[in-house]
Amino acid sequence: MTGDPEAGVTRADLELTAGGRRLRFPAVWLRDNCPCPECVAPGTGQKLKDITDIPNGLAITLTEDAGESVAVTFAPDQHRSAFSRSWLAGHALDGYADGDGRTEDDKELWPAAGRANVPQVSWPRYLDRPADRIRALADVLRRGFVLLRDVPTEAGMVLEVAASFGFVRETNYGRLFDVRVEPEPGNLAFTSRAILPHTDNPYRDPAPTVQLLHCLRTAVKGDGEVGGGGDTGLLDGFAAAAALRATDAESFDTLARTPVPFGYIDKETELRASLPLIQLSPCGRVRGVRFNNRSARPLRLPYAEVIAFYAAYRRWAELLARPERQLNLRLVPGDCLVFDNTRVLHARTAFGVTAGSPGRHLQGCYADLDGLASTLAVLRREENQ
Amino acid sequence: MTGDPEAGVTRADLELTAGGRRLRFPAVWLRDNCPCPECVAPGTGQKLKDITDIPNGLAITLTEDAGESVAVTFAPDQHRSAFSRSWLAGHALDGYADGDGRTEDDKELWPAAGRANVPQVSWPRYLDRPADRIRALADVLRRGFVLLRDVPTEAGMVLEVAASFGFVRETNYGRLFDVRVEPEPGNLAFTSRAILPHTDNPYRDPAPTVQLLHCLRTAVKGDGEVGGGGDTGLLDGFAAAAALRATDAESFDTLARTPVPFGYIDKETELRASLPLIQLSPCGRVRGVRFNNRSARPLRLPYAEVIAFYAAYRRWAELLARPERQLNLRLVPGDCLVFDNTRVLHARTAFGVTAGSPGRHLQGCYADLDGLASTLAVLRREENQ
Repeated sequence: MTGDPEAGVTRADLELTAGGRRLRFPAVWLRDNCPCPECVAPGTGQKLKDITDIPNGLAITLTEDAGESVAVTFAPDQHRSAFSRSWLAGHALDGYADGDGRTEDDKELWPAAGRANVPQVSWPRYLDRPADRIRALADVLRRGFVLLRDVPTEAGMVLEVAASFGFVRETNYGRLFDVRVEPEPGNLAFTSRAILPHTDNPYRDPAPTVQLLHCLRTAVKGDGEVGGGGDTGLLDGFAAAAALRATDAESFDTLARTPVPFGYIDKETELRASLPLIQLSPCGRVRGVRFNNRSARPLRLPYAEVIAFYAAYRRWAELLARPERQLNLRLVPGDCLVFDNTRVLHARTAFGVTAGSPGRHLQGCYADLDGLASTLAVLRREENQ
Repeated sequence: MTGDPEAGVTRADLELTAGGRRLRFPAVWLRDNCPCPECVAPGTGQKLKDITDIPNGLAITLTEDAGESVAVTFAPDQHRSAFSRSWLAGHALDGYADGDGRTEDDKELWPAAGRANVPQVSWPRYLDRPADRIRALADVLRRGFVLLRDVPTEAGMVLEVAASFGFVRETNYGRLFDVRVEPEPGNLAFTSRAILPHTDNPYRDPAPTVQLLHCLRTAVKGDGEVGGGGDTGLLDGFAAAAALRATDAESFDTLARTPVPFGYIDKETELRASLPLIQLSPCGRVRGVRFNNRSARPLRLPYAEVIAFYAAYRRWAELLARPERQLNLRLVPGDCLVFDNTRVLHARTAFGVTAGSPGRHLQGCYADLDGLASTLAVLRREENQ
């Protein structure tokens, strides 16, 4: 152990060289991250100290360098904290890190969609092989969706798919909802109409961050053949937002700063939320999109802002409607799409309804990205053990 | 019906006088809000048109004033829309409106807490009388919490309370969780330690927006008498944020723009989220607070920003720790607190554990504000019928 040549001198920082780099850590940051059992509960990793437990006038009075570890002693209370050099090197305070994977910076964007690009895994493999499960869940986070194939076409299976990576988010539509033509639809989803790209439940806050759609039956043509429409389209909203920012920064800014009121009303429900169509992280990076004109309510802004908003909104809608941005899929029975509802817009073409024959039938449910990311992290941890 | 004196002149706006005010509406706003059955599905109130369905070069060619209603005809497609004058007056574009009730502007703040100020309703009255249910749910939205009394002290009742206004948000802690001393706690909540004011699950995104805590048993002293500690404290985080902004705008801004990494790890779980301690609406109003040093992970920012953050963080923590801000409650068996986890911080004092006698036991669960607000809106609608 090497004594600090400046022992006895109080300092506000720890400075050291690790991995060939000169690193500098403030005393308060070190103390707040002290890993000793007085500061962190061994079982849970949770901190035992609140920020107000850190003494005022904190300084480092002694630095002891023991090769792979470095220990510092703090004034005024003589608390001693030891850190591994590799941990310090891995936490260098020289840039921005430790986001949570939710902004555009951590995504693989697909500005132009192609049929070849569909990440997919069969359900039996997903269940049996952790490596396939890891790949599928990572695709939801990185690319915004995955297509699970060969999921048994049994009612309620969509809930099992959700339970395989997280927790179902129950809403007024139930734990699961049936997407098929209803005689008295409470929502346009339950008709045979075409629906342009949109995100679900923009009138909710928090909106569900994951959506699942499991195909039980496809639409058939009048002659009973498949191909009766009801095809699914997906679109990368983060890639589209980046394109808007690159070509029309003013519209992008307008959409990011204007809260849009959304609403949904039926007999038992009256939901509303007012949030921008493009949501940014505090650092100004795209973190979410909401797009669903069906549920938009009248904007209540000063006249000039309404004019500016509609100009931006139209640009945005036109960009989202470009066919080359859309990935077209024909779900077959057993297909289950899992997608990021904060990023990927989904659409469907109109479909035929043939009297006397059962029509298109999907079952859907909602879940959340945080649980999915947690399941993925645990699978990766187990894989690395 | 009065013909428009300027019939035949295309105009971009509708101008009219209603309620003694001169009002002005852009053609595109009117068209997007056209209530005719071609534009809005009669059953659902959902719009049938996407923003790209509105023709380019939209203008008003004819305005027909029929007293209580006003009809406009649009170029280029001759679509005709009628609006009631009172609806137009109620949607004047002369300011900001139609938020969703979630920012500080729609709250009743309580900067200094007092025992007299506890909104409360007994569970049987809440169940029987819509007016009491309305009052209780409105208190959660406006004041951040309500205390329901006389909820039967049966295990699982907390789920029934949640179901009375919304949907349970299941997490890795289960649909409900037991807050009591555990031999191998996976979380400091499950010890007898004091816990300073905090919000729950900051490592989740979306974090649950409502929390419920139902008291089944209080802590007892060594002699078996009540008063063994474990008292509950509540604190209005929005009022505290407003106070910070008023006294130290720089710290407020630092906290609002710095994403803080939070994490939680156990055998089955690895959650993380990176969000600011104070979350603002796009208009810069307080919309959420997260505060929980136990789960904070090392900040990874450039050195100078770390220094600035910790100075602001300490100011904020000191402000939140002021006793006069805290409302102290001693929950008795049958009490169920329902509070806004995006706004109200909760705390508890340490409590005694007496060998051989059953200790303090709460059951908790999570739910969401959007469902609660929906239930309240429907109750109010029914009351006004």
